[in-house]
Amino acid sequence: MSEGCGYCSGTGETVLWQGEDCRVILADEPGYPGWCRVVWKEHVAELSDLAPRQRRHLMDVVAAVERIVRSKMSPAKMNLASLGTQMPHLHWHIVPRQLTDPTYPSPVWAEPDASRARPRNESDLADQLRSALNAELGQGRSLPFR
Amino acid sequence: MSEGCGYCSGTGETVLWQGEDCRVILADEPGYPGWCRVVWKEHVAELSDLAPRQRRHLMDVVAAVERIVRSKMSPAKMNLASLGTQMPHLHWHIVPRQLTDPTYPSPVWAEPDASRARPRNESDLADQLRSALNAELGQGRSLPFR
Repeated sequence: MSEGCGYCSGTGETVLWQGEDCRVILADEPGYPGWCRVVWKEHVAELSDLAPRQRRHLMDVVAAVERIVRSKMSPAKMNLASLGTQMPHLHWHIVPRQLTDPTYPSPVWAEPDASRARPRNESDLADQLRSALNAELGQGRSLPFR
Repeated sequence: MSEGCGYCSGTGETVLWQGEDCRVILADEPGYPGWCRVVWKEHVAELSDLAPRQRRHLMDVVAAVERIVRSKMSPAKMNLASLGTQMPHLHWHIVPRQLTDPTYPSPVWAEPDASRARPRNESDLADQLRSALNAELGQGRSLPFR
């Protein structure tokens, strides 16, 4: 635990899947429904700080989230990123990009087009993704993952 | 091969390591020395389009590049991203972030601070990274990677 780290505390998160080593949460990013994050449990900064088997487990979860988000959201493209420059606790962004989203086709961190709509997540989206993730990953799987 | 895809043609790239399934190149992004890309050979859009063993091989290479770039550039943070929204050919950005880079601590795709310097890669950086990658990965390794 690192004091002041929002990913260590996990306050206010919409958790979609909880494993022993990482969890999947639904981000609240208006304009980008289905944007998920995979958060490593320990306060570790970089992917290469993990042991190879931990890294492979994390990336297996990221790929599973990507598959499920693709299947539910039918995006034009998926974006994946592990940045954490201001919050150095290893977490992955899994972002379905739609032709109509506020920054398409630029990265989501570019200046948005103010004229585009910013729909919120539909109320049952978390439930849909949660069921699909539990079916795909099992409940609370730990290492070794598969 | 997809017509008009710069990652299929590979024109003008500074190649640091070439494997049978993917290659590592040094990006020419002024202000961000050491920014590398790992490019999957086939024209595939998404990480989850790969078979699990291909995906693990690719991410092993990404992690190796991250380790080497960290060791050579001593960054404040590493950033990893697979976006490709405008160029849907699977490639990873591996970006060492420095306190003085044009967009620190925002993502590299945010609006830059025009007052910050934009140093280019030092002339021998490609050679240094190339040697380290060949030592780490071997020359032209294919699947299965390890």
